[in-house]
Amino acid sequence: MKIIRTVSGMQNIARAAHKNGKTIGLVPTMGALHAGHLSLVNRARKENDVVIVSIFVNPKQFGPNEDYLRYPRPLKKDSAACRKAGVDFIFNPSVKEMYPEGFLTWVKVEKLSDFFCGKHRPGHFRGVTTVVAKLFNITQPDRAYFGEKDFQQLTIVKKMASDLNFPVKIVPCPTLREKDGLAMSSRNSYLKPEERKAAKNIHLSLAGAKRKVKKKKTKSIEELLAELEKNLQSTPGLVNQYINIIKPKTLEEQKHHIQLPARIIYAGHLGKTRLIDNIEIK
Amino acid sequence: MKIIRTVSGMQNIARAAHKNGKTIGLVPTMGALHAGHLSLVNRARKENDVVIVSIFVNPKQFGPNEDYLRYPRPLKKDSAACRKAGVDFIFNPSVKEMYPEGFLTWVKVEKLSDFFCGKHRPGHFRGVTTVVAKLFNITQPDRAYFGEKDFQQLTIVKKMASDLNFPVKIVPCPTLREKDGLAMSSRNSYLKPEERKAAKNIHLSLAGAKRKVKKKKTKSIEELLAELEKNLQSTPGLVNQYINIIKPKTLEEQKHHIQLPARIIYAGHLGKTRLIDNIEIK
Repeated sequence: MKIIRTVSGMQNIARAAHKNGKTIGLVPTMGALHAGHLSLVNRARKENDVVIVSIFVNPKQFGPNEDYLRYPRPLKKDSAACRKAGVDFIFNPSVKEMYPEGFLTWVKVEKLSDFFCGKHRPGHFRGVTTVVAKLFNITQPDRAYFGEKDFQQLTIVKKMASDLNFPVKIVPCPTLREKDGLAMSSRNSYLKPEERKAAKNIHLSLAGAKRKVKKKKTKSIEELLAELEKNLQSTPGLVNQYINIIKPKTLEEQKHHIQLPARIIYAGHLGKTRLIDNIEIK
Repeated sequence: MKIIRTVSGMQNIARAAHKNGKTIGLVPTMGALHAGHLSLVNRARKENDVVIVSIFVNPKQFGPNEDYLRYPRPLKKDSAACRKAGVDFIFNPSVKEMYPEGFLTWVKVEKLSDFFCGKHRPGHFRGVTTVVAKLFNITQPDRAYFGEKDFQQLTIVKKMASDLNFPVKIVPCPTLREKDGLAMSSRNSYLKPEERKAAKNIHLSLAGAKRKVKKKKTKSIEELLAELEKNLQSTPGLVNQYINIIKPKTLEEQKHHIQLPARIIYAGHLGKTRLIDNIEIK
């Protein structure tokens, strides 16, 4: 396994791989890898000749009052995990290598980027799509792996790749969870012990709402969301940011009567930590 | 020579070419090819194994009151010229193939897109950079050829390709001119005979201003521009839109004392036809 720091170095490797008829799988990450990331790596390992994990804490997707500076950066531990998982290359550029002075270009997916997380984190998805477009051009992947935990991000990246004709298949991967149901996230490390304990209630509440829909025990979306909101709000320290039931393809909010397939999407703060989760209802 | 209408068809050809170790040169055009375009094609032919000319009148770069509908589309004539010039593939997709229903993604270069032509044609450069990003992903060129006549466009495309790390070299090509000096343009076909006659005065005036700078016969940029404006304005039917002296790399307007290298850039209307031109001063 090699760690590559420069754009041109990575592009030369990708070009040579394609010339040799090899396929490339990319797992874009901000590092602080957990089992969720590694499940993406494992899948990439099975499906491609060359596996690249990018580790880059992308400043353009953080707001001014967010956790860019304190975001964890355990590169040694991440490298060891990647090596063990059979990764071929880690792409780990500096901020200056990715955004040289005078950088001016943005890739933006309209509409989809403006609601839910986009509404609460202005500019966030524009930062995501810009860095992902760059990573696609730098690593030239045949397949790129994204977790379903960031469901809106996954949908937006898919749309960007398809609208701009990137020759890459976006592969969605299921969310991995801790034993108590909490969705794995690098940000879980911020949680204080009592917050960590309370955090399980997010998934438990979403799963409860899902059960009700499956059992047709609920009459309307409004009713379901009101109950879910109350349930979540009873979690010590949790402040809801949004809860919605959406059509998974278009992210459109559903109203009144639920139509399947659907997803319940959630964001909230537990102390200073922002957590998101979602659940599929087929 | 083959005419390719689908994104996937073109991408398969590009992938196969790279796999065979071949280089690809792209000449992106809106068709109505003239000798200027063909000089780009000839250069691409010399420098690459595979030459692709894209012919696509891109609706996203036209304003609502512009000439999208009446823009010339002489595909048979264009095909014959490409075949004669040794082009391998014409990529000629439909609007629906390029912008399927629900298209939402934009690529934008900030600042550079907002002044000069960008100020007078709001959204124009966003349309250009979006379609060029798509064409790069569809044809996977090693080199892409752009004329210097659209100098602001050339600068913006260069910036976009570099900011987003497209693995392509942008090759600028000098403006070709009619015998009387008028810059070749597909839009020249709109000119009525008396307008066509008057149009030569654009280049003559710019070339005159350049001579004055070279001979150090002028004191300040303000003085030079005032005289140039007056010269141009005396052309029957010509209405100036902008005249500026800029730094070629950043498009920054120069003021007071001219610094070389510089470019004088111009846009104006002759009757209903919008014409642009520019001249380099080294």
